[in-house]
Order: sequence, then structure tokens, then C-alpha cells
Amino acid sequence: MTKLLNDRFLRALHRQPVDRTPVWIMRQAGRYMPEYKSLRSRVGDFLTLCKTPEFACEATLLPLQRFDLDAAILFSDILMIPEAMGMGLSFVAEEGPKFSSVITAASDINKLPCLDPEDDLSYISAAIRLIVKNLNNSVPLIGFAGSPWTVATYMVEGQTSKQFYKIKGLMYQEPRLLHQLLAHMTIETTKALQAQINAGVNAVMMFDTWGGILNDALYKEFSLRYMAEIVANLKSDNPTIPIILFSKNSGRCLTEQAATGCDALGLDWTVNLAKARELVGDKVALQGNLDPCVLYASKQRIAVETKAVLEQYGSGPGHIFNLGHGIPLDVDPDNVQVILDVVKGVTWR
Amino acid sequence: MTKLLNDRFLRALHRQPVDRTPVWIMRQAGRYMPEYKSLRSRVGDFLTLCKTPEFACEATLLPLQRFDLDAAILFSDILMIPEAMGMGLSFVAEEGPKFSSVITAASDINKLPCLDPEDDLSYISAAIRLIVKNLNNSVPLIGFAGSPWTVATYMVEGQTSKQFYKIKGLMYQEPRLLHQLLAHMTIETTKALQAQINAGVNAVMMFDTWGGILNDALYKEFSLRYMAEIVANLKSDNPTIPIILFSKNSGRCLTEQAATGCDALGLDWTVNLAKARELVGDKVALQGNLDPCVLYASKQRIAVETKAVLEQYGSGPGHIFNLGHGIPLDVDPDNVQVILDVVKGVTWR
Repeated sequence: MTKLLNDRFLRALHRQPVDRTPVWIMRQAGRYMPEYKSLRSRVGDFLTLCKTPEFACEATLLPLQRFDLDAAILFSDILMIPEAMGMGLSFVAEEGPKFSSVITAASDINKLPCLDPEDDLSYISAAIRLIVKNLNNSVPLIGFAGSPWTVATYMVEGQTSKQFYKIKGLMYQEPRLLHQLLAHMTIETTKALQAQINAGVNAVMMFDTWGGILNDALYKEFSLRYMAEIVANLKSDNPTIPIILFSKNSGRCLTEQAATGCDALGLDWTVNLAKARELVGDKVALQGNLDPCVLYASKQRIAVETKAVLEQYGSGPGHIFNLGHGIPLDVDPDNVQVILDVVKGVTWR
Repeated sequence: MTKLLNDRFLRALHRQPVDRTPVWIMRQAGRYMPEYKSLRSRVGDFLTLCKTPEFACEATLLPLQRFDLDAAILFSDILMIPEAMGMGLSFVAEEGPKFSSVITAASDINKLPCLDPEDDLSYISAAIRLIVKNLNNSVPLIGFAGSPWTVATYMVEGQTSKQFYKIKGLMYQEPRLLHQLLAHMTIETTKALQAQINAGVNAVMMFDTWGGILNDALYKEFSLRYMAEIVANLKSDNPTIPIILFSKNSGRCLTEQAATGCDALGLDWTVNLAKARELVGDKVALQGNLDPCVLYASKQRIAVETKAVLEQYGSGPGHIFNLGHGIPLDVDPDNVQVILDVVKGVTWR
């Protein structure tokens, strides 16, 4: 692999010294950017944007044209795997994702196809190759997938949920059936991430947005276990690829997350970075965790809160600055610049 | 006060020995009961049910006619205080509560009236008197209110929220304004709970459904602090009234919750009861915390999970069995009976 001009992000993932804390922003290509809104109105719907390599590449690069970020992240969606399985995904304005078919019985799971990512998700590989070419070794590119549990919540609920009655009902009623679904998604997610690695991403992140709705024992059984399998699968074939796990609202299980063999943990804003660091020691790097809503505050307050996150982590390597969740769609992009300015003013050697 | 025939719940709140763990079910009068659905279709809308003492009384008593529960809880809603303030509350099917006016500026807060609960919420006092009379000293009656923070989220967002961008934006942009709103709601909530005590409730519970969306420091500043004020206010005038605090997703701050002077903490299903007990020691009783979705499982599994909760608490006084959140609207009422059977089969002396 050719050396990157800016490898701060990768060095921090490996807990190596860096000249300053690297920074990127979850959902950095998003509706808070006028450039993104204009791309969206040109393209039309969100799925077309994800499925057209040229558009996905353009969206991926937009935030890097405006901001001096230390990583790019593939523009895509965690639901592209079930979409490719033919579950009929659509995005309804203001309502989020909807599947036209949902998983309710064993027969639905048995019918789920085994994907060939190079074919069924070929637009992702093509987008990655295009992005890598355009990045021209400037910064690393992050690939990603949803965790099997999180993606399964959408496949079973059919949409975003508040109480997750359907998937939790299934979990308590027919745990073996749910395990069958999760095992299938684990294989498919491994293949999809391997294809992203083959196409050229420099790191991968797994988003487990809904692991935190489970108690610790069930989180380990139904979510963490499958993420750990994916980590092990990927590491055995790609020992040097850095892997980040992000389980929202799961600050109770950081030690167990760190034991999966991943390289870094993403943390939401409810986790105390100093305490998290104490817990995980030098096992993993930590990524996060400014409350995205801080971006609604005055520039002065944003600077104070950004500094507070840096200070909570403290000195020494292994921190990647980020928000604790995706950036809201209606914040002022100039406020993002405040974060970058503050992070860049602080030198951790 | 006349002695209650069944005072298990109150004894457990005071951490006194009981013949067995007392049990009640959050949202025990709810749509999972055919009797409740028939009452609702007779009454029409939810607000009429809450605001008509005879109906509220009937709803409160329904679950006690079917199940041998150790406490009744007033049938009402945490949004009745802002409703009485004239914010235009309505309940839209499938969508939850909506306010026709919302808090966006200082002028909105300055306009909020000071209520006289005996007048503006007189239907609640009337319902309580009627319920107490009908209960005829059989079991205690629980009164309740939302926490200032949780009720404020609805007043600012105008409805149920997923990301709470508006109230969190306000919190970071104009913290003093939000504090002004919370201080006002603290006074009004204290008065409303005092009126419930005057009318005859035997215990009060504060529901802080959304405290857990804040990091620890902000939870203490914007949610817990105001609940602590209400506890102090109520305790100074009613030293023997037991008070339960329930902050969902706030298992990180149990020690601080226990230090408010309340008598018990409600726990959601993500908290480990044994660890919680270790943390709070003999300071408070603990209420909870079966995952409501367990009620979707087989009767055998429900029994196993119910036993597991009892065992996680262990022996000794101070446990009130409950769900970790409200009961889902579509579970089989016979499954609730399984919980009660198991709790009653186990004797903790």
C-alpha cells in the first residue's frame, strides 16, 4: 500500500504517537452542508445516491473539500446489505427507512439469499475504487457496515423503532430463529466488509446503533458476539486492517468490546472518556465523543466543549476526535470548523 | 391514616421485612387489557379518560380486579401539568402526544401560568379521593408526575422525539433559559404532587423517561437536581411519604440518585439489580426491572426471567418487583399472571 500523506487517523487507531489528535465527523457528508443538499437535489433520492459510484464518490469527497479532515468515510448506508437481499428498502422523508418485506418467520430467513458482494454490491466496490483514486493518498478511507443485530432490528421491525417490541419479542420467543438470522447476517457482513477492504478502504467501522437497548447479557449474546465473529473473520485474512466498533448506549460493556480484538471503540457522548480509557487500558484506541447537539451552541461554547473532550481523554496516543453520534442535519457548517480549529490547536505528542 | 390490609409495597419502600416481594406493573391499566380497551371505546379519547374522575378511577381499579397486585397507580399522564397550563395537548393515534404550542423563547416561559392544582388539576384530586374510597384500605395508591426535565422535553420538542435536538440545542445555547423553565416546572410539579398527597395517595413516583439522553454532568445539572429539589420540598412537608425516582437509562448515576433523599429507585432492564444494590447499599429500596418484552415469550420463559430478577436482587428487604418500563399494549394478560404467580411463590423474609 502506498504511504498516505496524512496517516494520523491510522496511527491513532494503532495507538502510535501523532502530532495532534486526528478528527473526522460521523455523517460528515450530510444535509448540514449546502453542497450535499445541492447534490441530493441533483440526484433525487437517497438510494440512487448510494448506488451510483460517481455520486457516492462525490458525496464522500464533499466534506473534505470544505474541511481539513483526517479521514474520509464511504458514503453509503448500513441497510445496503438487506437492500441487496431484495427486501424492498425505501427512504420516506421525515420517517427514515422502510422495508416492504419483513422477517417474521423461519421461512423468511431461509429465503434470504447469500450475496456475492462483487456482484450484488458492486456499486460499493466501484465507489471505493473511485474514491481511493480521487483521494490520491491524501487521507485514509473508512469503510463500514451495520452490526448484524442493528441491521436485523430494521429487517424485523421493518423500519426505525422506538420500543423494538418485534425483534425483542422474537429474541425472547424464538431465540434460535433470531440467532439463525444473526449468523446469516454475520457471514454476509463479513463478505461485504472484505469486499470493501479488497476495493481499497484503509479501515472499517461497525455501527451498532441499537446494541444498547439490551441488557448486558443479551447484548453480549445477540450483538457483541456477532461483531466479535466479524472482527475475527476479517483479522484472520487482513491482520493489519484497523477495525472500529461503535455500540451506542453500551458504555456498560466497554471491557468486553475491547476484548473482541478490534482496534478502537467508538463512544457516544454519555460515556466519560477518562473512565473509558481507564477501563480499556492500552488495549484499544478510543473514538469520540462530543455531543452532536453542542453544534447548536455558540462558537465559544463549542470550543469549550471540544477542549473538554480532548482534556477528558488526556495526553498520550490513541484518541480520534469525533462526535458521539451523527451530525444533525440543520447545524451551521461553520460550527464544524470551530471543532477542527480547536482540535488542531492542541498538540498531543 | 387507617392501616392498609396489604402494606407490603409501603414496607418494602421503607426497606422493612415483608412476607414476600411486593409487585405492581408499570402502566398496569393499559391496552393489553380487554377491560381497558372496552373502557376506552366507551369513553372515547385518552384525555377525557384522564380528566373525568369516575373514568380515571375505573381505569385505576381495572388491573386490581383482574390481578392480585400490591399497589394501585393513579391513571393519569405526565403531561397533565403542561396541559393544564394551556399548551394544547392532544394524543394522535400511533404518534403519541402533541402540543399545539411549544416553548421556543423566554417569552413562552414567562407566559406559563402558575397553577392551583386544587382548581386547575381538580379532576386529579377528585379521582384520587374516589379511588381511595373504592380501594377501601386494601392496597396503597401511588401518585406520580414526570420529572421537570422529561416534561420539558415534550414542551420544547412539541412531541415525542428521537434525537431531542430542540431541547438539547436550547440546553447548549441558552442554558439559563432552560433552567428557568425547569425551575418553573419544579415548583408546579411540587404543588401538583402535594395536591395528590393531600387527596390521599400513599406514595409518589417521579418518571424521568429522558434523563438518560444526557451525559452524567448534564443529567445532574438539568434533570437530577430538579428531582432532588422536589424530593426535598415534599419531604419537608410530608416526612413519611415514600418517593420513588425512575430515571430511564441512567444506571450510570444510581449513587447520585440515591443521595437525593428519595426512598426508592426505579430501574430499567439494562441495570443489573445485584450491582445496583451493591452501589446504593441500604440507602434506598429498588424497584424493577424485568424487560417488558419478556411478556412476549412463552409462559415458561417468563417464569425463568421473573425468577432471575428476584434472584439478582437476592434476599433481604427493599425490593419491589416491576417491569423495567411500561407494559407493551399487545401482550397476553395471562402472561402477566405468570409474573405474579412466580413472585408470590418466592418468600423473602
